[in-house]
Amino acid sequence: MSETLRAKGPIVERVPEGDTRARLVCEDCGFIRYENPKIVVGAVCAWEDRVLLCRRAIVPRRGYWTIPAGYLELNESPAAGAAREAREEAEAEIAIDALLAVYAVPRISQVQLIYRARLISPAVKPGIESEDAALFGWDAIPWRELAFPSVHWALDDFRATAGLAAFAPRGNPPGATGDRMPDGGAAWRRE
Amino acid sequence: MSETLRAKGPIVERVPEGDTRARLVCEDCGFIRYENPKIVVGAVCAWEDRVLLCRRAIVPRRGYWTIPAGYLELNESPAAGAAREAREEAEAEIAIDALLAVYAVPRISQVQLIYRARLISPAVKPGIESEDAALFGWDAIPWRELAFPSVHWALDDFRATAGLAAFAPRGNPPGATGDRMPDGGAAWRRE
Repeated sequence: MSETLRAKGPIVERVPEGDTRARLVCEDCGFIRYENPKIVVGAVCAWEDRVLLCRRAIVPRRGYWTIPAGYLELNESPAAGAAREAREEAEAEIAIDALLAVYAVPRISQVQLIYRARLISPAVKPGIESEDAALFGWDAIPWRELAFPSVHWALDDFRATAGLAAFAPRGNPPGATGDRMPDGGAAWRRE
Repeated sequence: MSETLRAKGPIVERVPEGDTRARLVCEDCGFIRYENPKIVVGAVCAWEDRVLLCRRAIVPRRGYWTIPAGYLELNESPAAGAAREAREEAEAEIAIDALLAVYAVPRISQVQLIYRARLISPAVKPGIESEDAALFGWDAIPWRELAFPSVHWALDDFRATAGLAAFAPRGNPPGATGDRMPDGGAAWRRE
């Protein structure tokens, strides 16, 4: 793989033959470096009537609450990735039940696959990327301190699909692009 | 972006601090080059009781039939990408109806989001990446000449969900990893 870091010729941005978009191309060897969106996988994890949230120990949005979620790794299936994130961020084992939602945040070239899951045990605790991990009843969720718009969406969609066995995954709320929190605050603000 | 092609120091594979996986890291500047799975978007596109297939004009699997599908581009939503692929490969305009399936092919780090769609018009014709584009009734589908296992899966899942308005997206057939065609032949063979 390291040749992708080491093209030695001049790098130009041009439309390769047969393509329709400009790509980064090495003028010496013709190597084309395709850049594509990344996949975030995560889960709303429930224990009875409470859901798992983790307080982020890392930027961006350190100190804010999120569902366990992160980038899908090479050679990993989305469901396995969501289970890994729950393990890494909250030492939680989960049983995935359904694909809750597919969100798109085109500005940052991100597609999110968010699952609905059941915790195997209520004993959760913060992993290395979390300051805290805890279970929240609906009314106790720290709505004003959620890390990202899609965390808010996922919790709403979890609520909206409660009791449904088979359903079409939810998408972005109408008109929402993930650039702002539902309360109007800027998303992805860095602190 | 071009600095990702141009790290000048020695590139080593090591686990960055706070990470759990080996990454490609530039020893000079500390730049980490994350590699993540790619997203393929596509659609089973129907006109009445026929579905659209395209005969590939490009490797891999040149001459074999596929549904319109390809890599999601930067800043694109999955549904927009699936519509673009139908346009590029068959000059077809489509109306997306549902997320038909989420397939994973972990060996090649690919996640496929396949939609169910309706053709706006039966007038399809091959785009630049296709030798042919045509509508097939179920019994006329060239099952032995499909390009990839997931094309076979998608057609089967289209059939299985016919008439369902809201349903959970299908996944890989049980035990299938995308490495072999349903008839046992090797997938991804290059000709």
